[in-house]
Parts: sequence; structure tokens; C-alpha cells
Amino acid sequence: MSTLTAPENPDADDTVKAVFDDIRNSRGTDYINNIWRYLARDPALLKDTWSEIKSVMGSDTHIDSKTKEMIYIAVSVANACSYCVHSHTAAAKAKGMTDAEQTELMRVIALAAKTNHLVTAMQIPVDSTFDADQKK
Amino acid sequence: MSTLTAPENPDADDTVKAVFDDIRNSRGTDYINNIWRYLARDPALLKDTWSEIKSVMGSDTHIDSKTKEMIYIAVSVANACSYCVHSHTAAAKAKGMTDAEQTELMRVIALAAKTNHLVTAMQIPVDSTFDADQKK
Amino acid sequence: MSTLTAPENPDADDTVKAVFDDIRNSRGTDYINNIWRYLARDPALLKDTWSEIKSVMGSDTHIDSKTKEMIYIAVSVANACSYCVHSHTAAAKAKGMTDAEQTELMRVIALAAKTNHLVTAMQIPVDSTFDADQKK
Amino acid sequence: MSTLTAPENPDADDTVKAVFDDIRNSRGTDYINNIWRYLARDPALLKDTWSEIKSVMGSDTHIDSKTKEMIYIAVSVANACSYCVHSHTAAAKAKGMTDAEQTELMRVIALAAKTNHLVTAMQIPVDSTFDADQKK
Amino acid sequence: MSTLTAPENPDADDTVKAVFDDIRNSRGTDYINNIWRYLARDPALLKDTWSEIKSVMGSDTHIDSKTKEMIYIAVSVANACSYCVHSHTAAAKAKGMTDAEQTELMRVIALAAKTNHLVTAMQIPVDSTFDADQKK
Amino acid sequence: MSTLTAPENPDADDTVKAVFDDIRNSRGTDYINNIWRYLARDPALLKDTWSEIKSVMGSDTHIDSKTKEMIYIAVSVANACSYCVHSHTAAAKAKGMTDAEQTELMRVIALAAKTNHLVTAMQIPVDSTFDADQKK
Repeated sequence: MSTLTAPENPDADDTVKAVFDDIRNSRGTDYINNIWRYLARDPALLKDTWSEIKSVMGSDTHIDSKTKEMIYIAVSVANACSYCVHSHTAAAKAKGMTDAEQTELMRVIALAAKTNHLVTAMQIPVDSTFDADQKK
Repeated sequence: MSTLTAPENPDADDTVKAVFDDIRNSRGTDYINNIWRYLARDPALLKDTWSEIKSVMGSDTHIDSKTKEMIYIAVSVANACSYCVHSHTAAAKAKGMTDAEQTELMRVIALAAKTNHLVTAMQIPVDSTFDADQKK
Repeated sequence: MSTLTAPENPDADDTVKAVFDDIRNSRGTDYINNIWRYLARDPALLKDTWSEIKSVMGSDTHIDSKTKEMIYIAVSVANACSYCVHSHTAAAKAKGMTDAEQTELMRVIALAAKTNHLVTAMQIPVDSTFDADQKK
Repeated sequence: MSTLTAPENPDADDTVKAVFDDIRNSRGTDYINNIWRYLARDPALLKDTWSEIKSVMGSDTHIDSKTKEMIYIAVSVANACSYCVHSHTAAAKAKGMTDAEQTELMRVIALAAKTNHLVTAMQIPVDSTFDADQKK
Repeated sequence: MSTLTAPENPDADDTVKAVFDDIRNSRGTDYINNIWRYLARDPALLKDTWSEIKSVMGSDTHIDSKTKEMIYIAVSVANACSYCVHSHTAAAKAKGMTDAEQTELMRVIALAAKTNHLVTAMQIPVDSTFDADQKK
Repeated sequence: MSTLTAPENPDADDTVKAVFDDIRNSRGTDYINNIWRYLARDPALLKDTWSEIKSVMGSDTHIDSKTKEMIYIAVSVANACSYCVHSHTAAAKAKGMTDAEQTELMRVIALAAKTNHLVTAMQIPVDSTFDADQKK
């Protein structure tokens, strides 16, 4: 089920075809997963989203790609996005996340959620020592 | 402001004193930040929480400590826990997170939130290729 | 699957029958969708919920009905309510939301989520100029 | 700070005055807390909200009032509503919540959040035995 | 579907077997539901999670077990954890939650969410009278 | 307080100065609000964020600007972003949102949150009639 339909012949649109070709090339597979197939309903949104993903999640940055996928998983879990948890877990595994790293990631996410809720229940004041402005 | 009071003489309780001493030793400072001061209202909860933090966030695991703090920040941002974002950003910096890593972390968190919401708006089906059970 | 059962003969209860008839009349169809069928387990809750929906989402107010459905979708996406995203997208389309408006709505929701997370990560102070109390 | 202003003379409006009087009577104090003072900007919304609170949170129902306030706190923590956590913690204490119950409530909320995130990270299938429809 | 696989012969691991036996004994059934079957991928995480559930949710505490399950449901609904809502609704029913209590719980959760969002939209200041520190 | 510092002389950076000038021109005021001042810590992120805001929230699209700000508020409320609720309420008012529209927006957001939680508590199946794929 979905709230909008994926186009039946996405490659008929030049913008979509260019993005799909780039996805296929960058991943070495013909398979296009559902987020891209459905975003193709709006070629400009597809193009912008893919471009941003490539730029932010690519390998030539300060944080390595596998770690960035693990951070992506953490946010997706907290936002309860089922599709995103699945797709980025698959991506993290493709970039080398081991079983041990996956379950440790789960531990960190779960503990963060636990203390997030503890702290919100207590409504405690932020220590002034944490303030970046104070330290500049 | 807070919903429960921090005890005025926390070190008077043996359990609390032991935890506070361990916090001070492990960080090399006498300063005890607010989450621990307020949790001291319930010494058993304080002890369990500190013990779990030490075990999960310590350095002798599969994911390095700085990365774990960055994952912790990601969850805390998505759960909108102001205190937690402050305290774990301070912890990540203490463990070596650079300014460039911090802003790149922000980019990853923000992009994840963006696609989380896009995907939830589309309600697209999960690709069967993502299923771990299918692959075992 | 569900956590409570829909009654098998909902029209046997007078309160339920009156609400179901009103739903059928106001929509011009005999079909009753699942939220109402399951809420019928508690006729008073069914009646109150339908009454509130009719009052808030009706056409005789300051914001037009199509726009209110789009706002409803936005909240439902952020709260990760799958059923709600589906049902209110259908409602918005029934009230005239075009494909172009739907994808633009997705863009606004996604961008809001992105900057929500950026801002929460930065924990920046609210500008005093935004304070309504200051301006009165 | 706020996004709308509380009226300066709320009692000048008959609807507001009636609600404020009812709040004062039911609590035995002249103090009106901020949610009601700001909702008075829209007397109909004030009246409907107070009426719903009285009806749902009152004492003549299946779940006792103190427990309902504790459930209210749990939802408010998960939704990160600072004002709500404060006001309903005060209400729960006024209805008899002890310090030991408050910290036990915190433990349950924190554990629930922890396993919520664990389960969402695993994306496990729901056991068919949990299905209410199956059991009817 | 899932993001990690449940082990095929979980009882082959001693830690897993001990936990599964304890689950079976404490519930009087051979059935092990999915959260435990999948957590068995990481025996230490399984053991710690079960141990914490037993300790926090057990019967020998300040808040009765049925009420704790209802609080657990409230958090799970707000965090949009489908599996958790199902499993803890089943647990609450097993501990005596009636149909009337279930729908009243739904009313409280729904009303809390409503006022959480109202208050967040208004961004109203917290009344100083709610501050626990002020009252000590 | 904040987790990163705003640069003291932001206009000294050419990229920042160009963005700030564009913000000032498009709004007809010299005042730069905090999100932009703090994002200036990372000029590329500042530039990309402002560019996306201008493109998505501008006036030349299918949904009018005031409505888009109201949708933005809805998402920001559900995501509990205090700063965002303040800044986009100010923006919506600047684009003509009346007091009556603001409180009606609050009603719609609050009702959506209420039924989001009701539906998630019930875990009801999505009606197949809502499926866009089915209708294509």
C-alpha cells in the first residue's frame, strides 16, 4: 500500500532515467528500491533527494560512510520509520557493519532512549558548563 | 525547575557516594552534572543508570566511544531531549569530536529526519530484499 | 491485527447506528472505514470522536477543509501514524488535493523535519522578537 | 515567551469567567495556571478543553484519578511536552502520588522507551497470538 | 521481515536456554514471543533485557503490575511502536485489564496527546508553582 | 545556551555575507535570527539550508506561502521543536495568519494528535480502499 503511485514506466522521463542510471551505477545493481521508484512520481523531488543523499552520505567526508549509516539508523528508529530502518540497516551492512556492531548500535540507541525519557520526566536544568557560547 | 528535588547532601547516602566517587574518578573532575544529582533522589536508580552507561558507553567495545556519543546525540535530537543533546554533545567533544564532525553529524541527522518524513508520507512497502530473515 | 475487536453487528447499538448513519450520509457512501468500526467497541468514544471530527474538520470555518486535511496529514506523518496518513491523504484527495499539491506538501513536511532536527541539535536560544507576549 | 498572548482581563468574557470559576471551585484555589490563561484567548477552545479534561480525568471512572495522571505523565514525557510533564506531575502529587511511585513511574517509562527503540531497530513481526481479532 | 535473524536453535546457547526457561516458567506456557526469539541473536542483550523487565515490571513494587503495563502501553503508543503496543496490551489483559479499562486508557492517552500538542503550539511558560525545587 | 557557537563576525565570510544579505533583502530588515547566525558556523550548511527554505517556502508554487507556514508549524509542534514553533508562527503571522486561523490551526493539530494516538493504540488495519496503488 502507499499514498501515491509509482510511475509504471519511470525510465520514460529523462530526469528519472538519469537518476536511476546513477543509482544503478553507484551500486553495481539494476535493482531500484521503492523509495526511488515512488519518488519518481515527482522527478524534481527524486533528483534533489538523490543528490542530497549522495552528497551527505558519500565516502569523501569527515565521518566514514558506515558510521553515517549507523547514525541514520539511530534517527530512523527514534522517528519510527519502518522503511528507513530496513533500508539503512541494509546499507550499513553493505558498507561493512558487522553483527556485533549492529547489536551494539541497538544497545546505544536503546540506552539513549531510556535516559532521554528519564531526563524528560525529571525536567532538570541544563548545566551551564555544557553551554558552547560560554566557552568561546 | 524540575519535577523532583535533588537531595541536598547526596554524599550522605553510601550508594550515592560510591557512584559519585566513581563518576569523579572516571572523569577526573569533582563536578557532578545535574542528571546524576537529581537521580540521587533514588539511589538504586542512580546506581543502575550509571552502571549501564559505563557498560554500554565505555571504550572496550566494537564501536569506539566517540562514535557512540554521536549516535547518542542523534537519538536525543530525534527524541527532542534538550538536556541530553547538551550533555552528550559535551561528552562527544570531550572524546575528540571536531567542529567539522559535529556539523557533519548535524547534516546526517537532518537528512535522515527529512527522508523519514518523506517515506512516512508515502507509506511505501518495504522491499523484500531488505529482509534479514530472507537472507539467512 | 488489532488490540481490540470491532463489534460484529455494530448497527445493533443505537448510538453506533446513529453515528454510522451520519457518516454514511455526510460522505454519500455505505462504506464505514476501520477507525469507526473499531471505535464502535465503545459507543460513547465513537460518538465523541466523530462529533469532534465533524466540528473541527467541517467546511464552515476559517481554514478551508482541504487545507485542514493537509495539516492533519503533516501531524500524522510526524507522529508516524500509518493508518492516519493513509486515511487523511484519501480525505484530502476527496476534497480536491492535486498530485502537485500532495508532493509539495511532502516537500514542506520533509523540510520542516530537517530544520526541526538541525535546530534541536544546535539548541539555539529563541529570539526575543518571536515572543507574542512582548508584542501585545 | 509564547506564540499567542493571554488576555489581560480574562474574566471580562463570560465563557472564560465561567470556566475559571469552575477551575477555582474544583481545585479550591484562586490560582489559574498558564494553560488556561493562554487558552482563554479562544473562549470556545478553553471551554471544550476544560470540559474534556474534567470528563476524562475525573474520579468517577474505571481507572482511579491518580493512575490517570501517571498515564498522562507517561504520554507527555514521550511527546517531550515540558509544560505538560510539570503540570501533570504536580496534579499526580496533589492526588497522592508518593516519591516512591514517582521514581517507579520513571523506571517504567524509561524501560518502555528502551524496548520501544530495541524493537523498532529489529523490526520484528507481531506474533499472531497478540491479535484481538483472532481471539474474538 | 526483520533487520536481524532469530537464531534457528536458540536453546543450543546456554544463556539463551536459561532465559527462555525462565520466561516459560514465569508465564506457564512454552510459547516464546518474537522479541525474545530475535534478541537471542545476542545472548547478553537478551539476558539483560529480560532481567530488567522482570525487575521493573514484577509484582512486588509500589505500583501494581496491571497499572505498570498500562503505563507501558501509553509510552509505546506515543513512541509509535506497533509491536510493543500489541505485546503490552496482551500483557495488560493477562494481568486483568478489562475492556472498559482499555478504552478508558485510550481516552487518557488521546487527551494527553491532544493537550501536549496544544501546549507545544502555544509555547507557554511553566508556572513557577510547579517547580519541585522551589518547594523543598 | 547552545551546542555550538555562532561566529562573532559572520559577515567576514563571503558565503555567509551573501546569504545574510539575501535574508535581509528578502525580508526588508537588518535583523538576522538565531538559526542563521548559528548555522553560519558552517557556511556551506547555512547556504544550502537557506537555499532550500527559499525554494520550498517561496510564493511561486501550488500551495500558498501562508498555508505552507501553517503546515510547517504543524510538523514542528509534533516534533516538539520549540524554536521552530516560535519562528514559523512569527513567519505565518508575517504572511497574514489571523488570530482565528492560529487557534483553528491549534485545534486541527490537537485533534490530529488525539486520533493519531487513538489509532496507534488500536493498531487497526489500513482499509484497502485507501491504497493509491490499487486505484491507478
